Amino acid sequence: MRTIDQLDSPAVLVDLDVVERNISTMAKRAEGLGVELRPHAKTHKTVEIGRKQLQAGAVGLSVAKVGEAEVFADAGFEDIFVAYPVIGAQKARRLLGLAERIRLLVGVDSVEGATGLAAPFQAAGRELEVRLKVDVGFHRVGVAPDKAVETARRIAEVPGLRLEGIFTHAGQSYRADSPEAVAEVGRHEGETMVEVARQLAASGIGVTSVSVGSTPTAPHAMKVSGVTECRPGNYVYHDATQVSLGTCRRDDCAMTVLATVVSTPAPDRAVIDAGSKTLASDPLRPGSGGFGWIQGGSSHLARLSEEHGVIEVAEADRYAIGDRVRVLPNHACVVSNLHDRVYGVRGEGIEAELAVAARGRVS
Amino acid sequence: MRTIDQLDSPAVLVDLDVVERNISTMAKRAEGLGVELRPHAKTHKTVEIGRKQLQAGAVGLSVAKVGEAEVFADAGFEDIFVAYPVIGAQKARRLLGLAERIRLLVGVDSVEGATGLAAPFQAAGRELEVRLKVDVGFHRVGVAPDKAVETARRIAEVPGLRLEGIFTHAGQSYRADSPEAVAEVGRHEGETMVEVARQLAASGIGVTSVSVGSTPTAPHAMKVSGVTECRPGNYVYHDATQVSLGTCRRDDCAMTVLATVVSTPAPDRAVIDAGSKTLASDPLRPGSGGFGWIQGGSSHLARLSEEHGVIEVAEADRYAIGDRVRVLPNHACVVSNLHDRVYGVRGEGIEAELAVAARGRVS
Repeated sequence: MRTIDQLDSPAVLVDLDVVERNISTMAKRAEGLGVELRPHAKTHKTVEIGRKQLQAGAVGLSVAKVGEAEVFADAGFEDIFVAYPVIGAQKARRLLGLAERIRLLVGVDSVEGATGLAAPFQAAGRELEVRLKVDVGFHRVGVAPDKAVETARRIAEVPGLRLEGIFTHAGQSYRADSPEAVAEVGRHEGETMVEVARQLAASGIGVTSVSVGSTPTAPHAMKVSGVTECRPGNYVYHDATQVSLGTCRRDDCAMTVLATVVSTPAPDRAVIDAGSKTLASDPLRPGSGGFGWIQGGSSHLARLSEEHGVIEVAEADRYAIGDRVRVLPNHACVVSNLHDRVYGVRGEGIEAELAVAARGRVS
Repeated sequence: MRTIDQLDSPAVLVDLDVVERNISTMAKRAEGLGVELRPHAKTHKTVEIGRKQLQAGAVGLSVAKVGEAEVFADAGFEDIFVAYPVIGAQKARRLLGLAERIRLLVGVDSVEGATGLAAPFQAAGRELEVRLKVDVGFHRVGVAPDKAVETARRIAEVPGLRLEGIFTHAGQSYRADSPEAVAEVGRHEGETMVEVARQLAASGIGVTSVSVGSTPTAPHAMKVSGVTECRPGNYVYHDATQVSLGTCRRDDCAMTVLATVVSTPAPDRAVIDAGSKTLASDPLRPGSGGFGWIQGGSSHLARLSEEHGVIEVAEADRYAIGDRVRVLPNHACVVSNLHDRVYGVRGEGIEAELAVAARGRVS
């Protein structure tokens, strides 16, 4: 078996023992609460890890782009939710192609957008299953809860569409400043969605799915009775942001970036061959802890250029040219999107080279 | 000819008229000052645009990674400088493979690192041409100017190496707060390097190349007598950061990202289908102008998620679902690295689909 020390750097390592434990933990939590799990594939973008999620009981996958759905459909996945307000005639035709071979769900958040998707389905004598996005406080996309009934009614009337459910993403959890605040966001997320579903039912618009999702809020939102589905993504790898939020411990993080010290120009500065092209430049949220933690010490990356990561060397640490380090990234999902492959490891052994098959599918 | 309105979004557009003008302007400036141009390919990472640079008189290309050099060597480029302190036995062997088929130059900034590269060359009875990196104030990698003679002397003595020159990158220009401050950084860059070269010569260590480089400082550093080469990268596309620095005008920017408005949840908020996965999350430097400017109006992207760009809609602007917009990114180089292809356009016509062939070559 190849071992990590044989890899050239930088390289993205994914600890498969941790991945499998993370998948199992979330699957059991959902099962125990009677909630279906439909993980967001954005974090890994790989066929093999998506399969592990299904094997652990997930009902299907969530993705953000039509192109990602196409990759997973090609790989044999049969139930996919494009959890994004898809817009435009070209994408509507691609959705029809997908719906002819898998069970497809698509997000909408406006009557105009939904109507645009319906045309090719109506022409083909089919119905597209859509879910209405509700804004529970992130203020990005989605209809306000008090506008949901009116929008849902109009969407349900569009020929070629079937309103299957409602969904949300409480991204504001990433701005929370304590585990208690995260839990409160999660409770609010679940309760708001269940209340919207109740109002819809009272108006004669029944929906099957009440879908919530985000790794920080999942344990809390899933506890709310009436929530039927959860779509966490990041939990499969976790990252420094999740540790910082209190969502997981450091040893629940599966992804690290193997890098080499290439320069030690000053006692308090060591430079590695991994910069923003490898780690992305997403800040740590919450807090301002630099751009990645170096494993096995207390130093961190203080700044990144595209090809350089500058370690601010802590008092107790020493780095020499040629040293290999492993960096815990701030945000695992964006790291996946920068790489064509990641290495699935167990201990020091490399078990698999995983293609990041859905990487770069922007449309 | 296909036109832009036929493209699905998001998509990266590169205006070839602007690219060719930018290439020509920089080539003429260098030629007029008697300085050789060796553009850094990191900005475009495409074979076709690299060829345009050579056709305009560039002596070769600069890259950051061995893997990038391999891509360009495979495409027929014959003179490449890996402008980075390359470290490690695996990369040394790959460098030997490259040196057997092209003229190869490699950066070093330490005796240890340089010695590690020499071994396979010495064993093969060859010499690797190296350039010593000097730190002119960016404080990332490179030896301090007052340590350059001592380090250069020791590197020049390593069997299997030939010290061909010195090089630097005045990245601190991106922190300058006025065009005058940028010019001062550039003058200092050129003068420091020429002084180091003088000291080397006085110590009996002759070097051929005195190489400077960065798009903001290029016009200023090239004016310093004794500078022999310049390695700007970004100038080929430019971006909002260059406009903000005063390096170029807005219509000198060749790269825009075509996107679609997918949601208009509030009067002052419109959301497009391009987020950090498409535009990267690099901040505007200098200043804090958001994450991309929307062409044809005065609105900008106030925040990005991976798949969403949130436009803070200016008073005079109006956006409707389905509208197509073009975004001027903060940092063109990192956008290139996110995409498998870019579209070369002239006016509304698509002339070429360019593979970003060296994208994602992290090692």
